Amino acid sequence: MLQPPDRVLVAVSGGKDSLACWDLLRALGFEADGMVLGLGIGEYSEESTRYATAFAAARGWPLHVVDLRTRFGFDVPGAAAATRRAPCGACGLAKRHLFNAVAIEEGYDVVATGHNLDDEAAVLLGNVLHWDEEYLARQQPVLPATEGFVRKVKPLVRLSERETAAYCVLSGIDYQVEECPMAAGNRHLAYKEALNVIERRSPGTKAAFVAGFLARGHRRFAAEAAPPDLRACPSCGAPTTASECAFCRLRARAATARG
Amino acid sequence: MLQPPDRVLVAVSGGKDSLACWDLLRALGFEADGMVLGLGIGEYSEESTRYATAFAAARGWPLHVVDLRTRFGFDVPGAAAATRRAPCGACGLAKRHLFNAVAIEEGYDVVATGHNLDDEAAVLLGNVLHWDEEYLARQQPVLPATEGFVRKVKPLVRLSERETAAYCVLSGIDYQVEECPMAAGNRHLAYKEALNVIERRSPGTKAAFVAGFLARGHRRFAAEAAPPDLRACPSCGAPTTASECAFCRLRARAATARG
Repeated sequence: MLQPPDRVLVAVSGGKDSLACWDLLRALGFEADGMVLGLGIGEYSEESTRYATAFAAARGWPLHVVDLRTRFGFDVPGAAAATRRAPCGACGLAKRHLFNAVAIEEGYDVVATGHNLDDEAAVLLGNVLHWDEEYLARQQPVLPATEGFVRKVKPLVRLSERETAAYCVLSGIDYQVEECPMAAGNRHLAYKEALNVIERRSPGTKAAFVAGFLARGHRRFAAEAAPPDLRACPSCGAPTTASECAFCRLRARAATARG
Repeated sequence: MLQPPDRVLVAVSGGKDSLACWDLLRALGFEADGMVLGLGIGEYSEESTRYATAFAAARGWPLHVVDLRTRFGFDVPGAAAATRRAPCGACGLAKRHLFNAVAIEEGYDVVATGHNLDDEAAVLLGNVLHWDEEYLARQQPVLPATEGFVRKVKPLVRLSERETAAYCVLSGIDYQVEECPMAAGNRHLAYKEALNVIERRSPGTKAAFVAGFLARGHRRFAAEAAPPDLRACPSCGAPTTASECAFCRLRARAATARG
């Protein structure tokens, strides 16, 4: 997953998982810096950036602060309105694109995210419920680097959200407790709730679900996944299968709607 | 799944699904007879047999009535106590064994069960949560006949449990509404509850889950499943991979505990 002298960019939200991840990687001796993305989701996003900034400042660790609105002229609520789709799609797209883009610009080898076991199990459940072959092929705690993409790792994927919360409490890490208000009622939360129903009846199911997928399920989907045919986005240079990358298309659409 | 002149044995519990299944197969012109298994679960099992018998008698359709205790000297609660395991395991084992055995003895080509979409989705979820490769390879609405096993079909697998209930109400079929008291709190019910959480948020998920598995998931597990090395059980003649079949071992264990 990680090996010195890897330079790691930690995707930081100000919540317990990403701050615990950053803290642990530093404790393990990695050169790990943070990046927080201003999503423009009102007070929630402002608070998120405040927690990340305070955490970094108290430790003297470098934090890249990128604001969607300032730098790209749109925000997540605007993108959701322009595309008339759920905000989580635009948010995830912007995060994937920009953490990777900044990692490449700033010479990091890896992007680390704080996804915990509960997140991973819920995403896996969604992918399995839809038998989404492409997503199942890509769902791994380590995605190797490919042309135009740095490596992506999820170091906390074996820890439950209670464990990362406990780690923060024990380590004196002050984190944003509030959940994103735009995520309320989204599918991912329904998957989490469903898994919690089962976990209460059969503790350990989530861990067995994710571990079993990696041991016995994943290879059955990975084998057939054809490598995509990528070209450089003419606007930003990011690899894409389309004539312009999805982030630049989103940005253009959100900007048009605004103007 | 079924083709005239197939002789069909319908596994009947007295509940809505199995009675609807039997009724529909007869309406489609199949030579379909019923079989009800007395499981010995107190008043629940007695009522179950009464509903099945009354349904068959009113229509003049043949029903095979097999009582576990009378014919094999044990019942489901006794088997559960003797094996110190959940009763649902012993119950499923006895059903699989005896519906197949009676079908062979009585010259039926197929055993049809009333599994509906909710059942199938819950079983699939359990198999996926444990990434049980063998069960995933076998989870199909049609299991072809093999040496010692008749074909198994689940004609109602696309209908939700509300739809089979509605069919019974509209067709004037009187069925047992009560659920098995020994199933209360079992895993299968937790899987159903979890799927209902998701279905409420995203209607159609169960149907897409089962259909997507058959379209895109199943083949990835079927390909590698090695055919088992079967011999005849010395006690009953049923095919088994062990020195004695699981049903005869269960019967012996339950009988010893009783004696």
